[in-house]
This record gives sequence, C-alpha cells and structure tokens, in this order.
Amino acid sequence: MQIEPVAYYRGPFGSKFGIPRQSGLSTSLQGRIVFEPEYRRPEALRGLEGFDRIWILWGFSANRQGEWHPTVRPPRLGGNTAVGVWATRSPYRPNPVGLSCVPIGQIDWERTEIHVLGADLMDGTPVYDIKPYLAYADSYPEAREGFAGGAPEAVLEVVIPTEIPLETEERAALAEVLSLDPRPAYQDDPDRIYGMPFAGKEVHFKIKDNVLTVLAYD
Amino acid sequence: MQIEPVAYYRGPFGSKFGIPRQSGLSTSLQGRIVFEPEYRRPEALRGLEGFDRIWILWGFSANRQGEWHPTVRPPRLGGNTAVGVWATRSPYRPNPVGLSCVPIGQIDWERTEIHVLGADLMDGTPVYDIKPYLAYADSYPEAREGFAGGAPEAVLEVVIPTEIPLETEERAALAEVLSLDPRPAYQDDPDRIYGMPFAGKEVHFKIKDNVLTVLAYD
Repeated sequence: MQIEPVAYYRGPFGSKFGIPRQSGLSTSLQGRIVFEPEYRRPEALRGLEGFDRIWILWGFSANRQGEWHPTVRPPRLGGNTAVGVWATRSPYRPNPVGLSCVPIGQIDWERTEIHVLGADLMDGTPVYDIKPYLAYADSYPEAREGFAGGAPEAVLEVVIPTEIPLETEERAALAEVLSLDPRPAYQDDPDRIYGMPFAGKEVHFKIKDNVLTVLAYD
Repeated sequence: MQIEPVAYYRGPFGSKFGIPRQSGLSTSLQGRIVFEPEYRRPEALRGLEGFDRIWILWGFSANRQGEWHPTVRPPRLGGNTAVGVWATRSPYRPNPVGLSCVPIGQIDWERTEIHVLGADLMDGTPVYDIKPYLAYADSYPEAREGFAGGAPEAVLEVVIPTEIPLETEERAALAEVLSLDPRPAYQDDPDRIYGMPFAGKEVHFKIKDNVLTVLAYD
C-alpha cells in the first residue's frame, strides 16, 4: 500500500537527539500539525474539539531504513539486550510508522492547524493519519508493559542560566526535555560538550554529577 | 511511503458485517496473527510475553477507497451527522490504516503466531505493524471522547437455539458480537432475515423487539 503525508509536524527539535523516547514525557513541549494544501480543510477537523487527545501516525523519516532485523537493542535496556522488534517501539521496523498519543493544546481553525503538546517528534516529521483518542477502546491503565517498565523519569537537575536567550515557554520545554537525559545510555563523560538543535538554534550543554548545565544557545 | 503486510489476521468474520466497531467490545472473540514467511521469526517476538496488549496497525482492505472526503457520517451518530474525518475512526480516510488495541491471548512460539482476543478485524486483514502497548504512554482513562461517548453496549438479547451447530467458544463469541446489534443504524425490520459469514459458515438471524434469534448456521 502506498501512503502519503497528509501533514507535517512542526516543533522545536531540529534533530533526533534530545527528543523524548515516547510522547507525554514533556508537557511543556509545543508543536503544530500543519496540513498539506490538499488536506487543509477546516471541516475535516469538525468535532475534534470534543476530544482531549489524538493519535498521530507518522513516519520515522530520520532513520535510514535498511534490511529488516528481527531483534533490536532498546536504549531502555542499556543497548545491550536484544529483544524482538514486535516487542519494541523501535524505529527500525519493517514498516517505519510511529504511533504517538498527544493532548490537543488548541485547534487553530483559521490556519487549519492542530496545536499539540509533548510530541516525541522531530520538526518536519511526515504525518500519515490523525485519529481521535477513544478512552473506552484505547485506555488500559493496568496493562503489563514488560521490560519497558513505566515512564522514564527526570533524572538530571537542569541549570539554564538566565542570560541564555530563551522565551519562557521554550525555556520550560527545554528544561523538561533535558532533565530526561538525552545522552545515549552508555555515555558519561563530564568533559564532553553536547550540541542539540532546538527551536532554530543550537543548545550546548555539559553533564557532571547528574547536573546538566546549558552553556550557550546560539 | 510504500508499506507491505508483515502478517494477516485470521478470525471468524468472513465479511465486514457484524464486526464490532472497535476492538475490546467482545472478549470471547478469538483470532490469530499469522506472519508472512519472511517475517515468521520467533526471535522477533522475544519479550512480547511480558506485555498484556499490543497495537495492531492494519489495512482497511474491505473498503473501496475513492476520492478523499473531508467529512464522514459515523454510524454512532445514526449516519445523519457529518463530522470531520480526523475526528473519527472511519475507514474512509486518506491513508486507510486502522489502529486496534487487543489483549494477547497466548503466543504460539512453534508456529510464530500471536493469538489475540476481541479484534475488530475481518478474516484476511493485512497487518502492517505490531507494537507493544505501553500504559505509561498510551493509557489516558480520563480523556474526553467527544461525540463517541463511551463504549457501545450490548443492546439485544440473543437467542441461539441449542440445535444450532456451534462450538462452545464460537457460540459465546457469536452471542457477544450479535448482542451489540450488527444492523445499520437506520434499519428496524422485524421480518428481515440477515445473513452473516462467521467461522466458515453463514449465520441467519432475525431481530424483533430487541430479541435477536439465530435461525440457522450452515
């Protein structure tokens, strides 16, 4: 089956680095779903205002897809343990379609855009489908979740000096996202300076003794 | 993007008619996910035994796709009210991919099949992806669900005479599914005999005064 993007996600993350591993881990993160001209029809959103949340079906566009591998090594397990691809949300899968549940911030009827919060998506991610979240069919709070074992929590203290030029909302979103520890699981080098594109500029930071300090944003 | 089936769903429903409108409405309904030869690799399922539920991304293969329409008329609203396609789970959407959350009944490691319960899928439905259900990212029991307004409930009393030749499990699943009222919203004709393919044969039934009586299964 051939599927085509109906929209693109617009948000502050310019690369994969730093994006939370699932949606909902950061609630101050703001983004927009911008429809392609053919699908920019306000009536196609009619009724969505009654729902709190949507599903986004999107493409893992930032991952080069190669041959299929039956097992993957999830970062949650330290990158050392192989589990079956169907038991993970890994981007390296036969059909690279991602699934994210996000709250609707607001609907911009004039521009026909959906503002969403906390999406684990890179700027420019293609969106293939949007569905309303139906609690009666989609919500199972007691479902066992194997090795995934609950939401990743904030593990770092984040220091963003006041002289770093960030808007209030961007500052909050960045602090929240960085507190989840964007480093690959095996890295712990206090001298290393990390760079991460965020909201059009580059954030530079260091991590030492569980304190992440933002050094520059330019 | 080109996506290819990795598996096909095998279950008792031979046509769209009678299939519950979302997954989870019938729990006695049994089905299997049968992988295509290329994907029939038991190691690809490793770790899935720790999860209670999976997401199935599947194709609306039984619906002829035509031109895109920005609004649809959901059966839940009696078929008279038009709402935006992005506010519904309608099969008539630009990229006809369905999303269903189902419990894992068991994993058949020898045949590399996943047995699932209550899937709202027709026999032979193409499956494009399987993902583990993560309660921390996917479960929002309090989310408002607009006009969808909660799970459809059993509305009909179902009579399946003992002489109707059905196995115990199929009998339970059929009774549960029929109690949800498979008729289109606008139909109420007590003399009409309905036919529905189920588990390889045809079920015939009538509905009068909210009692559905199975007349034959052959």
